[in-house]
Amino acid sequence: MTLVHKYGGSSVATTEKIQAIAQRLAQLRQQGHRLVVVCSAMGKTTNRLIALAKEVNPTPSKREMDALLSTGEIQTVSLMAMALQALGVDAISMTGFQSGFITNAVHSKAFIKEINTQRVEQYLQEGKVVVIAGFQGITEDGHITTLGRGGSDTTAVAIAAKLGCSCEIYADVDAVYTVDPRIYPPARALQKISYDEMMEMSALGAGVLETRCVELAKKYQVDLYLGRTLEEERKGTTVMSQPVFFEDMPVTGISIKEHCAIVTFRHMEYNAGTAASIFALIARNNLNLDMINQTILDGKVAFSFSCSDEQASELEAHLKEDPDASALVLDIRRDLTQLSLVGVGMATHTGVATQVFDTLARCGIPYYQITTSEISISFTIDPQNKEKAVQALAQAFHL
Amino acid sequence: MTLVHKYGGSSVATTEKIQAIAQRLAQLRQQGHRLVVVCSAMGKTTNRLIALAKEVNPTPSKREMDALLSTGEIQTVSLMAMALQALGVDAISMTGFQSGFITNAVHSKAFIKEINTQRVEQYLQEGKVVVIAGFQGITEDGHITTLGRGGSDTTAVAIAAKLGCSCEIYADVDAVYTVDPRIYPPARALQKISYDEMMEMSALGAGVLETRCVELAKKYQVDLYLGRTLEEERKGTTVMSQPVFFEDMPVTGISIKEHCAIVTFRHMEYNAGTAASIFALIARNNLNLDMINQTILDGKVAFSFSCSDEQASELEAHLKEDPDASALVLDIRRDLTQLSLVGVGMATHTGVATQVFDTLARCGIPYYQITTSEISISFTIDPQNKEKAVQALAQAFHL
Repeated sequence: MTLVHKYGGSSVATTEKIQAIAQRLAQLRQQGHRLVVVCSAMGKTTNRLIALAKEVNPTPSKREMDALLSTGEIQTVSLMAMALQALGVDAISMTGFQSGFITNAVHSKAFIKEINTQRVEQYLQEGKVVVIAGFQGITEDGHITTLGRGGSDTTAVAIAAKLGCSCEIYADVDAVYTVDPRIYPPARALQKISYDEMMEMSALGAGVLETRCVELAKKYQVDLYLGRTLEEERKGTTVMSQPVFFEDMPVTGISIKEHCAIVTFRHMEYNAGTAASIFALIARNNLNLDMINQTILDGKVAFSFSCSDEQASELEAHLKEDPDASALVLDIRRDLTQLSLVGVGMATHTGVATQVFDTLARCGIPYYQITTSEISISFTIDPQNKEKAVQALAQAFHL
Repeated sequence: MTLVHKYGGSSVATTEKIQAIAQRLAQLRQQGHRLVVVCSAMGKTTNRLIALAKEVNPTPSKREMDALLSTGEIQTVSLMAMALQALGVDAISMTGFQSGFITNAVHSKAFIKEINTQRVEQYLQEGKVVVIAGFQGITEDGHITTLGRGGSDTTAVAIAAKLGCSCEIYADVDAVYTVDPRIYPPARALQKISYDEMMEMSALGAGVLETRCVELAKKYQVDLYLGRTLEEERKGTTVMSQPVFFEDMPVTGISIKEHCAIVTFRHMEYNAGTAASIFALIARNNLNLDMINQTILDGKVAFSFSCSDEQASELEAHLKEDPDASALVLDIRRDLTQLSLVGVGMATHTGVATQVFDTLARCGIPYYQITTSEISISFTIDPQNKEKAVQALAQAFHL
């Protein structure tokens, strides 16, 4: 069987940890599995490189930042290949360009356009363990790109999709939990979860997947498994198509996203051009929006969305330089916490929203922007109310 | 004017040093020069990476080692490009494969087969400072290679040869000296030196060029300048075709190579096949030989050569596994020091050899293998006699 394994940065933080993983992989290889291994940069390498960059340039160009950061993963995979070879396992490391990851040219958040797996498949055919540097690719013009947050997970899922095999993502968490257990210790580990729920819960707990990555897994029906690196027993979470639906449990989990900002454009004229120009602006800045709201009040439009604090600051800086944006009135509220209740059961259970806001009201927790989807309810609160809100909601929905 | 600048590892050891060099480059750019900058890995990065590799595998594969080590230079060049951009200079970093360095597949000591400078020239045309990762290339099959010791110098000279411009190599030494000033403080800095002399003196002093690199410069008539990073005045050494010949000075300088080994194959049958099989063995091991000697005694052949201690050990290990070599009797003398007196004047001055060995005899210094060329005399001595020998010879030849 062909398997894709992905190991996160804290799992490969030291050479001892790399050697321990190599031993596990050697066993799997001996059992006859064909293995593709995707690794992140060792421990805090990426942060260290970012700090160096900021020393020479407070606003480093994204192209150069991508070239710099891509080295972290290359170091891990060459070391992993060496560690495997030390155990007598035939292994070969591959950088983003060697493994055929062609991306668009949006540096720091590139999208995969195509994967030329010819070389990877050839090595697998030769019996090699193929160790691929995560998080990176190359444009058709030969520029190095990175895939953004959670990029190595995306690398792993994408190669699994292309090879038509399952993907196991290992990090320093046991599983996906109903609620982040650091905030709500009685939280339960989920044995199974659907792609859709997983997508909505993308920000839940540490080391859990980015939405984009789950989206990719769903699109190509890649069986995903999330577990703890070197776990003795298989205690992690399997992400799959089939919704895991319990009649009596409309909510599967609560996801928590911190350092959110709400950006609001106020007093805009009500015409089609206004919103279009804002979306164009957002596209130019490559922002990932969340919770988009538009309200019309007295014939004027208020348009708002949430994004990360960092992205809000980037947008603000760009707006100052953008002549098209000079007429816009902008409000940014920073450092909020976004909670999302997620569950496929919500679609058939009425009254979930009522119960959510009743619970918050009873605890005296004010909430700001609200959005809902078929299987989720999201809202932002002040960060100091986070634990109180999570505990009250987890109890209310028996998580 | 187009200029190639190369900065060594200690010159780019910190972000402050990178910024200072960026400032110097910005001035040159402002004066209208088109600039290609080649950088080594920062400070001790390469040693740190080698240590990591040895932790996971005492004998790491050379392919993986090359992939690992190539990251050091990529980090420097992306930081250098960022530092230039911070000063408002348009700059772009390039890895080995991006800058079109195609090499053969001899990992850790690859030779450049071809440089596709199309992209580099395009960027220069656009007014960009092009910052190229030294020491690395890529095979036609897409494997990352490194060029071996002094590889970044080779990168710089090769790109200068291809662009038809001069090459300035900056390190933490002022110039090429007649003798290493750390061993013989009265040594003089040479303002000019010929390619041939420079080749013979390749190991002279710290930060001085590898033979291979000078050979390349000579072949393509690249004007080479060696100076101290950020020097205020131009006090370095220019390497050029025209021999620098003083009637009264047959010796230009003394070069010192440490940790040398002498490898001797003894008691071999005198036939053409024997020497051929040894050379085949040497080629298989990619050894760089020096001071080759063959002596015939009582119809038996003794064949010896010098190389580095490290290469001698590699050869010894390979010989044990080589069935063709089982009949050979091998002697290895390790940790010797090789001194070479170099000077184009030697060709026309008689008695230099006599004066050399008289001087050594007067000081009571025993010497082992001797070889001579048109412009040099080399011999090996015990390392503890190094300073005494260098001082006596430097005085004898007025260096």
